[in-house]
Amino acid sequence: MSYHKPEAKTVQDLKDLAQKLRIHSINATQASKSGVSPSALAWPMWGKNFDKADYRTYVVVGDGESAEGSIWESLHFAGHYKLDNLCVIFDVNRLGQSEATSLQHKLDVYRDRLEAFGFNAVVVDGHDVEELSKAFHCAAITKNKPTAIIAKTFKGRDFPNIEDLDNWHGKPLGDKAAEVVKHLEGLIVNKNVKLAPKPVPKTGAAPEVDINNIKLSSPPSYKLGDSIATRLAYGTALAKIGQNNQRVVALDGDTKNSTFSDKLKNLDPQRYIECFIAEQNLVGVAVGAACRRRTVAFVSTFATFFTRAFDQIRMGAISQTNVNFVGSHCGCSIGEDGPSQMGLEDIAMFRTIPGSTIFYPSDAVSTERAVELAANTKGVCFIRTSRPNTCVIYDNEEPFTIGRGKVVRQKSSDEVLLIGAGITLYECLAAADQLEKNCITVRVIDPFTVKPLDAELIIEHGKQCGGRVVVVEDHYQQGGLGEAVLSALAGERNFVVKHLYVPTVPRSGPPSVLIDMFGISARHVVNAVNEILKD
Amino acid sequence: MSYHKPEAKTVQDLKDLAQKLRIHSINATQASKSGVSPSALAWPMWGKNFDKADYRTYVVVGDGESAEGSIWESLHFAGHYKLDNLCVIFDVNRLGQSEATSLQHKLDVYRDRLEAFGFNAVVVDGHDVEELSKAFHCAAITKNKPTAIIAKTFKGRDFPNIEDLDNWHGKPLGDKAAEVVKHLEGLIVNKNVKLAPKPVPKTGAAPEVDINNIKLSSPPSYKLGDSIATRLAYGTALAKIGQNNQRVVALDGDTKNSTFSDKLKNLDPQRYIECFIAEQNLVGVAVGAACRRRTVAFVSTFATFFTRAFDQIRMGAISQTNVNFVGSHCGCSIGEDGPSQMGLEDIAMFRTIPGSTIFYPSDAVSTERAVELAANTKGVCFIRTSRPNTCVIYDNEEPFTIGRGKVVRQKSSDEVLLIGAGITLYECLAAADQLEKNCITVRVIDPFTVKPLDAELIIEHGKQCGGRVVVVEDHYQQGGLGEAVLSALAGERNFVVKHLYVPTVPRSGPPSVLIDMFGISARHVVNAVNEILKD
Repeated sequence: MSYHKPEAKTVQDLKDLAQKLRIHSINATQASKSGVSPSALAWPMWGKNFDKADYRTYVVVGDGESAEGSIWESLHFAGHYKLDNLCVIFDVNRLGQSEATSLQHKLDVYRDRLEAFGFNAVVVDGHDVEELSKAFHCAAITKNKPTAIIAKTFKGRDFPNIEDLDNWHGKPLGDKAAEVVKHLEGLIVNKNVKLAPKPVPKTGAAPEVDINNIKLSSPPSYKLGDSIATRLAYGTALAKIGQNNQRVVALDGDTKNSTFSDKLKNLDPQRYIECFIAEQNLVGVAVGAACRRRTVAFVSTFATFFTRAFDQIRMGAISQTNVNFVGSHCGCSIGEDGPSQMGLEDIAMFRTIPGSTIFYPSDAVSTERAVELAANTKGVCFIRTSRPNTCVIYDNEEPFTIGRGKVVRQKSSDEVLLIGAGITLYECLAAADQLEKNCITVRVIDPFTVKPLDAELIIEHGKQCGGRVVVVEDHYQQGGLGEAVLSALAGERNFVVKHLYVPTVPRSGPPSVLIDMFGISARHVVNAVNEILKD
Repeated sequence: MSYHKPEAKTVQDLKDLAQKLRIHSINATQASKSGVSPSALAWPMWGKNFDKADYRTYVVVGDGESAEGSIWESLHFAGHYKLDNLCVIFDVNRLGQSEATSLQHKLDVYRDRLEAFGFNAVVVDGHDVEELSKAFHCAAITKNKPTAIIAKTFKGRDFPNIEDLDNWHGKPLGDKAAEVVKHLEGLIVNKNVKLAPKPVPKTGAAPEVDINNIKLSSPPSYKLGDSIATRLAYGTALAKIGQNNQRVVALDGDTKNSTFSDKLKNLDPQRYIECFIAEQNLVGVAVGAACRRRTVAFVSTFATFFTRAFDQIRMGAISQTNVNFVGSHCGCSIGEDGPSQMGLEDIAMFRTIPGSTIFYPSDAVSTERAVELAANTKGVCFIRTSRPNTCVIYDNEEPFTIGRGKVVRQKSSDEVLLIGAGITLYECLAAADQLEKNCITVRVIDPFTVKPLDAELIIEHGKQCGGRVVVVEDHYQQGGLGEAVLSALAGERNFVVKHLYVPTVPRSGPPSVLIDMFGISARHVVNAVNEILKD
């Protein structure tokens, strides 16, 4: 309807202004029509508990979007952690896009719900500046709980024949604009009043921090052939970078003993935030924690549980977030827990995120380096870790670079290039052993990062193998490593690619049984090589 | 810890048993560790309001998962629609996976929240059968609101040295099993009591329905060259199949006047369910509505807002749902609303769903047929509709088939095959016009379905065009039409593919400006053709 146009001309201006006022405000509805980006809630969390700063955070929630469950995850989080430096304003204007909201102007229902979620809830006339001022003062002096201001408003207030009516959502006023503006100008009582915020004393601001050049406190220390799950190596590396930099923090959704993010909690409980089973808010808090470049945030859960927060991740990328996501328990190789727990679409999801970097390390050494690299990389990073133990195949001193794969097996006689990552790299290596007994030699590449993918390396070695490539992954066909390889080869003639992937919803069973049943074991790789050699 | 093993041996046995008892029960925690499948809530909805059946629905929610926002979306929905045939049991056992839940045994907080969400909330000792029986009776006689039974329980009750302790989540008892079983057997007071449910009178069951062979009430009736948005044609077709079959229902999340699902509401308000801005529950209700093959459910919102419900869609597929999803406002061609509203990863997301069918119709005629086909197709269907108007290019009698594309422009001299869908099909056609002025002729294919993709057609015509293919899509690079084409061509040598896609987060602007700025306009197609001809 009408948009308040602040004098600040750029986002940076706005940020600077907010910095001066020591206020963090988020208009949730600007973030996405479909609901608040709860990242706002990380600000009071970190301001209060971590930075010990005195800023306050204000969040505006539209009544329509307050039907989103993510809002209630966030409200519970704020109530649970008693974030008294948070003030959430519910703009209850009664109207959604296509009809009235379900709660319309039932302000008592909002109040009861917010109180039950641990808030100091204050109902006001949202058009009355004096009431609002009192409510903000009340919020500022209320301790040990966050405040919610429930503001009764009318959409298009004082717009003649528009106020509180349906069918005006998102519509320009068109030829009614002049009449409306004239009417509004007629309502201004004193045109000479100029309002300016009082200067804020420069005390209690957040301290300066340095989050550059994060390093492992010690290099990886494994023996070749050691059997270590990459998820465990993740925890080890997280604690190592946490030892070296006090701004490394971890967040998890009640899976810390599976993802091994608990290793940072064990190192320093102050730098671990338990977000419980609420992945939308988990991601939102991480996005908030990472903003303003004040922390290096690692957020972990089972890879597939991030599907709950796809919209939050997508919106985080639009806001240029630097969060590091770590998804464990990928693929059917998790075994007995069954398909609901198997990440089989996570690479596809994270690949769509603009500017994302996707690590898929196969052993403990490369996992530790992936963590170190992610900590220093802008944009969304995703590290895919595996549940089963895998062999250490890299020397502790092996250098790793984003966008550079490794040729892990090579002979001049190689006829086919195999590409695998995580557990399928080992299936490729096992297949190579079996094939060699039949005098067929194959090359094997570990891509290390799926995005960016080392296209140059794959093209070079693929050509040396007669343009024959077999890609094997513990993921569905679509959008994963296989299609990333196909995209890398799109501009090349004379390549033929066989892609082995999990073709359908898996079931529960022992890992080795499942990877064979679903077509990604060494036996299937051998078959694929034999077939591609016939082409 | 210990699993109750009913005598029913298969899922079908269990369903039959439930049918006999006229009870629908869902153990939410069986669905996914990370939260309830709120599809359960569709059953009381449809049972009460649509089937007028007398069954009751029981849902078990774990206390850990009740932190999920999706739970609160569902509870609000049940409260708002006064689903008094629903009984939700909260199993409050205090312990999560890695530590205690945030609310532990604060039963009063659960009660206050549930009452505020419109429930009759009853707190009981979850280990006391008599208290539970009374509570279930209370639920059955409570009218105009759903009931929540808040059951205080202890995890591993009566298991010596395990009850209420951490670190037992998901763990087998191992060598403690014999001791535990012996202890439990010692607690049985009367070993001769055998319990059996009373027979239930066969009245009030849901009526027989027929949802086979759904047809448009009349064929498409457009003129070639008419300018109609495919989202509008969706609404028209939805109303047409709704006229012909009383079991066609629609659900939307407060976008019905943009997706045009309101056309079914206008036809028959009883068959439209407003789910407000809560996409996780929206999808859950649709999954529930489609189960037991009692309705043909179409659920619509902006394509990108389905990212909020990726987990629900994924879990729906594991449960073999037949829901039809319709996502409007795809791509940067929506224009001014900006990137938060643009579906640029929706094809990637829906392609990963096992067994899914993805329609991407380009004109009104093919859209109407897509809707008709989706209504008769098992598994998850997704129809991607566009905001801008596009020309009608097919005769009203044109037949459409899943997995069969259309060659929309063809000459024997064609040197390059162009593939586009939605607005990019028209950019391809415009490019073809421009190229022909320079004596370059190109072939153009409309795939109609992205999954399954008509690989045969693409390979045949691609070969006729010298193996040169240009794919253009209003979607990010990853997992969309382009990578689907690359997967289709993976086994073919002598192809070269140029892929035009939206390479980064777009901005707000007029549609024609954006599709040119982000590299998918006719001008860019012409450039890509000229480049590929140099290879």
